[in-house]
Amino acid sequence: MEKTALSQKLEYVKQVLTTANQFDHAVNVLMYDQETICPIDGMEEQGEVMAFLGNESYKLIKEPAFVEAAEYLYEHRSELEELDRVMAEQLHRNYLQTKNVTPELQHEFSRVFNRSFVNWSKAREAADYSLFAPSLHEVTDVNHRMIELRGKDAAGNTPYDALLDDYERGMTSDMLDEAFGACKERLIPLLEKIQKSPKKIRTDFLHRPVNEERQAKMAKWLLTQMRFNFKRGAFTTSEHPFTAGLGRYDTRVTTHYYPDQFLASMYSIIHEGGHALFDQNQPAENHDHFIIDGKTMGMHESVSRFYENRIGRSESFAEFVYPKVCELFPDAMDGVSEKEFYEGLNVVKPTLIRTESDEFTYTFHIIIRYEIEKALFAGEIKVEDIPAIWSRKYQEYLGVSPATDREGALQDVHWASGFGYFPTYAIGNFYNAMYYNRMKQEVAVEDAIREGNFEPVNSWMINHVFAKADKLSPQEWIKDITGREFTPVDFLDYLEEKYSKIYEL
Amino acid sequence: MEKTALSQKLEYVKQVLTTANQFDHAVNVLMYDQETICPIDGMEEQGEVMAFLGNESYKLIKEPAFVEAAEYLYEHRSELEELDRVMAEQLHRNYLQTKNVTPELQHEFSRVFNRSFVNWSKAREAADYSLFAPSLHEVTDVNHRMIELRGKDAAGNTPYDALLDDYERGMTSDMLDEAFGACKERLIPLLEKIQKSPKKIRTDFLHRPVNEERQAKMAKWLLTQMRFNFKRGAFTTSEHPFTAGLGRYDTRVTTHYYPDQFLASMYSIIHEGGHALFDQNQPAENHDHFIIDGKTMGMHESVSRFYENRIGRSESFAEFVYPKVCELFPDAMDGVSEKEFYEGLNVVKPTLIRTESDEFTYTFHIIIRYEIEKALFAGEIKVEDIPAIWSRKYQEYLGVSPATDREGALQDVHWASGFGYFPTYAIGNFYNAMYYNRMKQEVAVEDAIREGNFEPVNSWMINHVFAKADKLSPQEWIKDITGREFTPVDFLDYLEEKYSKIYEL
Repeated sequence: MEKTALSQKLEYVKQVLTTANQFDHAVNVLMYDQETICPIDGMEEQGEVMAFLGNESYKLIKEPAFVEAAEYLYEHRSELEELDRVMAEQLHRNYLQTKNVTPELQHEFSRVFNRSFVNWSKAREAADYSLFAPSLHEVTDVNHRMIELRGKDAAGNTPYDALLDDYERGMTSDMLDEAFGACKERLIPLLEKIQKSPKKIRTDFLHRPVNEERQAKMAKWLLTQMRFNFKRGAFTTSEHPFTAGLGRYDTRVTTHYYPDQFLASMYSIIHEGGHALFDQNQPAENHDHFIIDGKTMGMHESVSRFYENRIGRSESFAEFVYPKVCELFPDAMDGVSEKEFYEGLNVVKPTLIRTESDEFTYTFHIIIRYEIEKALFAGEIKVEDIPAIWSRKYQEYLGVSPATDREGALQDVHWASGFGYFPTYAIGNFYNAMYYNRMKQEVAVEDAIREGNFEPVNSWMINHVFAKADKLSPQEWIKDITGREFTPVDFLDYLEEKYSKIYEL
Repeated sequence: MEKTALSQKLEYVKQVLTTANQFDHAVNVLMYDQETICPIDGMEEQGEVMAFLGNESYKLIKEPAFVEAAEYLYEHRSELEELDRVMAEQLHRNYLQTKNVTPELQHEFSRVFNRSFVNWSKAREAADYSLFAPSLHEVTDVNHRMIELRGKDAAGNTPYDALLDDYERGMTSDMLDEAFGACKERLIPLLEKIQKSPKKIRTDFLHRPVNEERQAKMAKWLLTQMRFNFKRGAFTTSEHPFTAGLGRYDTRVTTHYYPDQFLASMYSIIHEGGHALFDQNQPAENHDHFIIDGKTMGMHESVSRFYENRIGRSESFAEFVYPKVCELFPDAMDGVSEKEFYEGLNVVKPTLIRTESDEFTYTFHIIIRYEIEKALFAGEIKVEDIPAIWSRKYQEYLGVSPATDREGALQDVHWASGFGYFPTYAIGNFYNAMYYNRMKQEVAVEDAIREGNFEPVNSWMINHVFAKADKLSPQEWIKDITGREFTPVDFLDYLEEKYSKIYEL
C-alpha cells in the first residue's frame, strides 16, 4: 500500500516538474535572447514576459498539493531509488528556501531583477554608476527580504552565508575568509617578486589588430578541438560571454570580439566551452529526474577554469595551438616565437577588468568583489560608497584604479540580481587544482593536449568530475574525486611553481 | 446598467488578452530563436515548449467565460468605441474560425506543424523530398480538419477558399483565377518579347564575390536609410529571411548572405525592412486594443514589395545607392556604370528560386505554387506528385527545371504549416501598384528617393497605408487609399511600361 502511495506521488511530482520545466525552458530562451539580440527598447516588455512565465512555473511548485507530495517523497527518501532520492532532496532544499515566498512576492522580485538588469545595461553604456545605484539598493533589499523569509534551517550563519550557500552549498564566509586569507598571504609577496623580476615578457603582439571574421574562425576551431557538439549547441556573440543550457540537446555559448585583443575571445570561448562540455555531457537520466541543477556554481566554474587555465594556458596547449594562431593571425603573430606566445598567455599584469585578467591576479579581482559585497550585505558600507571603495581596493591589491565606473563597479552583470556568486570563480580554481593533481596520476594530460587530443581528458572529466556533480554536495564531490578535503593549497602551489618558472624567480 | 455590464466585460476581455499576449510573446521569441540560432537537435524540444505555451494562450481565449464576454461585446459592438469595436469583430472572427477546435486539438495541430518544420529543415538540408512528404500529408490533413471544424460562416466557398480567407480576408479562388488569368494573358507574351529582345543586359558583376562583412555593412546602411529604428529592432541572419514583430518595441529582421550574390541580401533586407517599417509605425492605440493582427498578409506583402520593388528597383533608387554600392563593393562594381547597375537590378531571367527571382518573373513563381496547392488541397493531385508537377510547370512557364528538390518544392518553408499564403505575395504587388499611382499624385517620390530621403514616402505610407490597416478589410482598405476596387491592372501596366523601356521593345 505504502509503496503504491509513494509511486503515485512520484509520478505526480514528475508530471508537475515536466510542465514547470517547459515554462523554465521558455524563460531561459528569452533570457538568452535578451543578452544576445533583444533591442534595448524591447527589453522591458520582454522582462515582463519572463517574470510572468517564471511565476507560472513557480506557482506550480508552490501548489499545496505539489509541496505535500514533494515533502512526502523527502520523508520517504530512504525507500526511493538513488536519482529519485536526489530529486526529493533537491526539492526539499528548494522548499526550505522558498516556503515563505508567495508567487506574488516572487513575481515582484523577478521584476526588480529584470528592471535592474536593464538599468545596469544603461548605466554601463553611459558609464554612470548613479543610473544603477537605485537598482542596487532595491536588489540588496530584495536579497535581504529573501533571506529573512527563509526558514531557520535554510539560512546560514549570517545573511550573506545564506547567499553563498545558494551558489555553493555548505560554503561559509568563515571558510572563505580562511581560504582568501591564505591566498593573500602567499600571493601578495609573490606578486611583489614577479613585479620586481628582471624577466621581460613580450606583450606587444597581444594588442595587434585582428579582424572579427578571423576571431570567429578561431573560436569555432577551438570549440571543435574541445569536442563541443554543434548539433546540440550554438555559439554567437554577446556583451558579456556566457553559457546557457537551454534544453537537453541545446547548449549555447557566446563570446565577444575585441579588435585589439585576440586572446580575450580565444580564452572566453575556451572557458565557456568548458561549461558547455559539462552541460553536454550530463548523464541522460539526470534530465529525466530533473536534477541537472544539482551542480553548484563552484563546480561549474572549476570545469570552465580547468579548460581555460589548466589546459588553455599550459605549455602543451600553447605548443598545440601555436601553428593555428600563426595561420589565422599572421600579422599579429609576425616574428613571435612559440616560447614568447606561451609567456604572453601568462604575463602577469594587474588590470581593471576581471574578464581580461591574467590567471595569477584573477583571484584578487574575486577577493575585492567578495570583500565589498560581504560588507554591503552586512550593512557596513553603502551602495553609494562602492565606487570609492572599489578604487581603493584595486589600488591596494593591484596598484591600478578605474577612470570610469564602466571599468569599475559597473563592469560585471552579477550584482544586478544579487550577491554570493563571485567567490565561486575562485572556489572553482581551488577545486580544479585539486582534481588536476588527481587526474595526472591516471592521464598523460600534457602529452594528449600537445597533440590536440582532448579525448582522454574529456573522458576523465566525464567519469570523475561530471558524473556525480548533480548528486553530491561540493564537499562530498571533491572528496569523491580526490579523496581529500577542500583546500586552496593545491592552487597556490600550482601558481607558485608555474609563475616562479616563467618569471625565473 | 447595460453600460456597466458592457464596460465590465470589456475590462475582463482586455485583462485575459493581456495574459494571452504574454504567452504569445514568448512563443514568438522562441520561434524567432528556432529560425535563427537554435541547434538542429534542440529544435524538437523547443517545438514542444512552443506548442505547450501556444496552448496555454489558446486555452485562455477558449474559456467559456471569455467566449461569452467576447461574444457579448460583439453583439453590442454598435455601443463600443471604434477600436473596441474592431477588437470585438476580430475576436468574433477568430471565434468562428476556432469554435470547434478544442485546446487538445489545437495542441495536436501545433505539434504537427513543429514536427513538420523540423522535417522540412532536414529534407531541405538533404535535398530529399521523401523526408518531408509524410509531414506534408499530415499538414494537408490537419488543414482539412481545421476547415471542417469551422462553422459555416467562417468557411469559404471551397476548403481552399477558407484558407485564402485566413491570410487575405474576402479573397477567393475565383478572384485569384481571374487576376492570375489576366497576368498570364499579358505577361506570357511580354516575357516572350523580352527574351527575344536584342537588348543585352550586363549581369557578370552580379555574381562577383563579396565578403559577408561588407554585405552586413550594406544591410545596416540600407536599414538606416529606410529609417528602421534600431533601438526598437534588431537584425541578424537566418536561412530564410523574415521579419518578426515580437513586442511593441521589438521588431526583428533577418537576411542571408550569399558570397556570390550581393543583391540577394540587399533586396531581402529592403523587403524585410518594409515589413519592419509597417510594424514599427503602428498607431500605439492599436497595441492597447490588441488589434495589431488585423492586417492581412496581402497588406503586409504590399508594403514589403513596395519598398523592395517600387522603390528599391527604381531608377531613382539606383542613382541614390550607386555610390555606396561602389564604395562597399569596389571589386564587384569595377567598371560598372550607373545605367548598367540599374539594368542589372532589373534583368529578366527565369530562375528556380522564388526569393532570388526578378520582379518580372516573380508572379509566375506564385502562380505555380497557387495552382499546385489549390489542386493538392482539392485532392486533384497527390503529395508524391508535387516534385514532378513542379518541374513541369517551371518548364512550361519559365523554361527551367530544378536539379534537386532543394531548388524545387523544398525551397520554401510555407507548406510546412499549410496553404493559402503564397498568393498574398502577388496580391501585395497588385495593391502597391494601385497605391503607388495614388501616392505619386501627392508626393514627388522619385525626387525624394533620388536624394535618399525616405521621409515623405514613409510619412505618406504611415498616414494612408499603415493607419487603417488593422481596422479595415483589404477591400475596404484599398478603396480607402485609392478610391478604387482591387485590380491587377495597375501592376500589369507598370510592368509593361518599365520593362518595355528597359528592353527597348
